[in-house]
Amino acid sequence: MASQSFSGGGDILADGSRSPVEELARRLRASHGRLAVAESCTGGMLSAALTSAAGSSDYFLGGVVAYHNSAKTALLGVPESLIASEGAVSAAVALSMAEGARERFGAEVGVGITGIAGPGGGMLGKPVGTVWVALSLARISGPVRTSHCLNLPGDRRQVREAAVEQALRLLVELLA
Amino acid sequence: MASQSFSGGGDILADGSRSPVEELARRLRASHGRLAVAESCTGGMLSAALTSAAGSSDYFLGGVVAYHNSAKTALLGVPESLIASEGAVSAAVALSMAEGARERFGAEVGVGITGIAGPGGGMLGKPVGTVWVALSLARISGPVRTSHCLNLPGDRRQVREAAVEQALRLLVELLA
Repeated sequence: MASQSFSGGGDILADGSRSPVEELARRLRASHGRLAVAESCTGGMLSAALTSAAGSSDYFLGGVVAYHNSAKTALLGVPESLIASEGAVSAAVALSMAEGARERFGAEVGVGITGIAGPGGGMLGKPVGTVWVALSLARISGPVRTSHCLNLPGDRRQVREAAVEQALRLLVELLA
Repeated sequence: MASQSFSGGGDILADGSRSPVEELARRLRASHGRLAVAESCTGGMLSAALTSAAGSSDYFLGGVVAYHNSAKTALLGVPESLIASEGAVSAAVALSMAEGARERFGAEVGVGITGIAGPGGGMLGKPVGTVWVALSLARISGPVRTSHCLNLPGDRRQVREAAVEQALRLLVELLA
């Protein structure tokens, strides 16, 4: 399923009086951009935040909560070999999730989140709180892909909430 | 992708001291059952609730937030003709979502939620607060399918939260 190109938000300025969800909604509406998400450690919290606003169906197509690695492959097309070579918590897998979501939902903007919310699961070089957020944006001039490694403090709930906040912030910046 | 059969929770008793998420986790663990969900109006909130507990990857495979009808078809295999004939908010579509989630994730238990959270979207016979929750359980003796129509009071947030609570309660009952 090919996703369509997307012109971006142009010269829309940030407005501190809006929540990140509201600001993102404004930018997606202005750009006729539609969003799809792929979440692992946040487990649906980003989708839940996006759909908390009435009318979000104008710009939010849906999401996949790919909690098991098998779901990342079956539902989003993330290659098993990529998960094996890079690890499930990596820039490459986050990007593959973002692109998988964008393509499978036919959206212009895709987000992928994969990380270690804790309390278990931390490892050498990837402690609890390590979260990769990747964005994939279809533009007429060619796709834009970015990935961001967050190191978030706190317990499981705090890591998950901060990851959602940061993903929203990164999306708003992408569409600036 | 065929899902495996599942023996159910047998004689495990409800324990009022546990939250519905904890009780469901206990029953799924005891039965070696794995869960997949498909959400429309709750927009990821059920998945987020299920993954709030550490260790939820033992029994939660993942979910699809099928916010647009196109996502219900593309990601979950809900027939377009079914949505057209029954409406997106119907027992038949909720069941198709539950079975789609169960099959696509290879789970033993599937849940589908579709409803009208408001403030808009209400119609004759389907006012705001109408939510269908469907469950699909693969048992050795054959699949068990149930659907439940909820009429939930309150605003968008209250309808969504109550739908998640009721879905968890129905899942606990199913695995009794």
